[in-house]
Amino acid sequence: MSEELLPIDSTEVPVFRPRKAMTNKTNSASSDAEPAISSRSAEFAFGTRWDDLPKVVQSESVRTFVNWVACAVGGARTASADAAINGLLRMSGAGTTPVLGRRERLQAADAALANCLTSAADTFDDTHLSTITHPTGPVAAAILSVAQTRQVSGQEFLRALAIGIEIECRISAAITAPGSGASQGWYITGVSGGIGAAAAAALLLGASHAEFITALGLAASQAAGLRATHGSMAVAFVPAFAARNGLAAAQLAMAGFTCGDKVIEGRNGLLPVLAPDADPTVIYRDLGIQFELLGNAYKPYPCGIVIHPSIDGCLDIARRAGSSNAIAQIELDVHADALFLCWRKLPTTELEAQVSLFHWAAAALARGQAGLDEGNAAAIADPEIRRLQSVMNAKVDPALASGQARVRVSLNDGTVLHSNVTQTTGSLERPMTNEELSAKFRLLASHRLSDESVDTLLQSCWLLPESLDAGNIGRLGALS
Amino acid sequence: MSEELLPIDSTEVPVFRPRKAMTNKTNSASSDAEPAISSRSAEFAFGTRWDDLPKVVQSESVRTFVNWVACAVGGARTASADAAINGLLRMSGAGTTPVLGRRERLQAADAALANCLTSAADTFDDTHLSTITHPTGPVAAAILSVAQTRQVSGQEFLRALAIGIEIECRISAAITAPGSGASQGWYITGVSGGIGAAAAAALLLGASHAEFITALGLAASQAAGLRATHGSMAVAFVPAFAARNGLAAAQLAMAGFTCGDKVIEGRNGLLPVLAPDADPTVIYRDLGIQFELLGNAYKPYPCGIVIHPSIDGCLDIARRAGSSNAIAQIELDVHADALFLCWRKLPTTELEAQVSLFHWAAAALARGQAGLDEGNAAAIADPEIRRLQSVMNAKVDPALASGQARVRVSLNDGTVLHSNVTQTTGSLERPMTNEELSAKFRLLASHRLSDESVDTLLQSCWLLPESLDAGNIGRLGALS
Repeated sequence: MSEELLPIDSTEVPVFRPRKAMTNKTNSASSDAEPAISSRSAEFAFGTRWDDLPKVVQSESVRTFVNWVACAVGGARTASADAAINGLLRMSGAGTTPVLGRRERLQAADAALANCLTSAADTFDDTHLSTITHPTGPVAAAILSVAQTRQVSGQEFLRALAIGIEIECRISAAITAPGSGASQGWYITGVSGGIGAAAAAALLLGASHAEFITALGLAASQAAGLRATHGSMAVAFVPAFAARNGLAAAQLAMAGFTCGDKVIEGRNGLLPVLAPDADPTVIYRDLGIQFELLGNAYKPYPCGIVIHPSIDGCLDIARRAGSSNAIAQIELDVHADALFLCWRKLPTTELEAQVSLFHWAAAALARGQAGLDEGNAAAIADPEIRRLQSVMNAKVDPALASGQARVRVSLNDGTVLHSNVTQTTGSLERPMTNEELSAKFRLLASHRLSDESVDTLLQSCWLLPESLDAGNIGRLGALS
Repeated sequence: MSEELLPIDSTEVPVFRPRKAMTNKTNSASSDAEPAISSRSAEFAFGTRWDDLPKVVQSESVRTFVNWVACAVGGARTASADAAINGLLRMSGAGTTPVLGRRERLQAADAALANCLTSAADTFDDTHLSTITHPTGPVAAAILSVAQTRQVSGQEFLRALAIGIEIECRISAAITAPGSGASQGWYITGVSGGIGAAAAAALLLGASHAEFITALGLAASQAAGLRATHGSMAVAFVPAFAARNGLAAAQLAMAGFTCGDKVIEGRNGLLPVLAPDADPTVIYRDLGIQFELLGNAYKPYPCGIVIHPSIDGCLDIARRAGSSNAIAQIELDVHADALFLCWRKLPTTELEAQVSLFHWAAAALARGQAGLDEGNAAAIADPEIRRLQSVMNAKVDPALASGQARVRVSLNDGTVLHSNVTQTTGSLERPMTNEELSAKFRLLASHRLSDESVDTLLQSCWLLPESLDAGNIGRLGALS
């Protein structure tokens, strides 16, 4: 363990307080003025030192990083990771940048892609709840590559992470707001993630104000991502290419490549093209005062976030029902997003199951738990889980919020069990505690690292604000 | 010169015949059926050998490749190329893949990006006129990288190029068709170019049917590009990242990474998200019978294609008017695209001038020519060119087709000169001849290569169908 990793109790890192949801279109008068999103984002970034960040934002930047490293190391075991890394090696050959949980060393951009891809492969990562962005992967993966080529302190790294996530989530908020005109088919992490990654990477590379804005523009020009990738390995490729794109944008900007200074907000820019009716003021209103990072949550279950309230309800009933063999019929009332995004029933692959409301509700009822083992091939083929899906109906209740669900289970003897989930586990109101995050970390990282290495890495993540060399995380987390 | 380069007269390569414009929505009944774009594209690709391509398509694949190599070698001299390649080297380090017109060797994906970027840097490349796609760059650059790692014959290379361009242009056609619901702000080469590049690269990498469809999906998931990049170096970055994205998509697919098989056409896929009202049948109607490659044209002037009819008219008047000092007033009647895309007046940089109708019309009147020298910094600062812009008005005439313009010039003595351009140079009706393409090639390539090297490279390009090793073009065209 390197000397900067002091033995501070991780439980001392404070838990964030939920903040008010950001409202849309409350300030429509100012949307007629020049939005100047790129330059305001630059002002925010350059004007915000680590010490300027509220303590809850500082600690949340550590928490989301802990969660991200856990997911990346754990996801390194997947077939998605094997295939992607093999493809990158075929294309680019080996490099020197480590990949968490893997032996291979890759080119910097490929490593950014791979580190983000593994972190998303189990769909176990984080979620900015109001936009369903998974913000940390693209940003953290891009700057972990940067931190291998220049020494970056833990505080510099976490400051860049927090700023990148903030810009990313605010762009997501503008695009995903009701009435923005954007298609719901956009996989928003791919769209905004590269911009956040570019912002963070540009900061760590020592960008000028103009270079920073160029990096945003080059990233915005690459903004992409479709939800049609859900249910396949490519669900992890979308955030992954955002990491690569953001790093490339920052590196080109630093080399003197130029771009218009309003590619996000200007004529034929990202907002006008993707979301012509978006309120651009969402992106800079109370920037540096309200932090979207505080609206980020960490998943307790490895599947689409919109499934989680139903899992909570099914786990509750499983505790009361005894054997699932007694279950005759299941009715789920859910938020519209749960069926829009996770409509699949009787999935046949692990990747389809990640976005199947029916699979996970059934697995939770059959097994009384909802971890990685409930998403594997054996669980998907489990006759009891398949039987429960076949006697399950789900319908949208417009009165339910996104973190809510109702489960109604009828047993063969006529008993009916109800569970009414009003605040799902891992929501802003019921956040994962630091202890739960550490437990999730150990569970995931133990797939790839020895117990001793897991402890060292976990402690190094919690203590990142004290570190002189954030790149150390990449080397500690990789296999030798 | 390698032995396969036989001295065949390039003038023997036949010139294509214009084909009917592809119409939209003529077959709307079939659009209700399952579009199956991805699998039909695969069937087309695997079912089309070099010998199955009509002779005019074969020869057009050579012509567009000649034009592309010319633009790439010439564009290698630009500040855009310097900056981009420096940024890629900072990020990835050096590799082994050559870059046309440059000394540096890059990683394969970076080389694909760089070779496409240089070919677009002068906006002198090709244009699929009905969609304003610049189709050859992303596809040719991606497969030139592939051809460095495995021996690919000239016919295999050109077959992949023709197929990639065909798929690319048909996706562009569906998205850009009036009424598709897509924003006009999409920089369509970035959107469709990666898909064409992925298709061509997958073919040359020996993809199976399933791997080919995966490559299309991974490319579609990265589809991006905004016209807000116009007027900056980033105008060349958009096609360039499409080349990189397409190559990465194909390499990941070949390594067993998976993706949904309907990312272009399926639920939350590219067409439904970008162009919800698009007619998907445009993409496969008469596929293998009608070839969009025959709707591709090569630029005689290094600026936005929509400016070209006005340049033709101004050159015509310059020949008749004598000194431009006598010009008092200029009126341009143009197609709507000319002002939508090239509205800039009195540009201050070379990159803004590339998309300035006013600059180029004025330069053509002042200089009597419209080559690279009319787009450089001296031309932009030329007082006479700036004076002519200031006495120039342009207005849209809805009756004009995209290849048409009217120019009306009033001289100080009261004389009025008219030019009515009904078929611009470089249009399908007045295509660049092979001799004109060779002259353009020599002019551009001589910026970077000796006369002897230019001759060898030019001959190798025209004789590519006889070559056993298409990758040789990359090595011949790079600096040692």
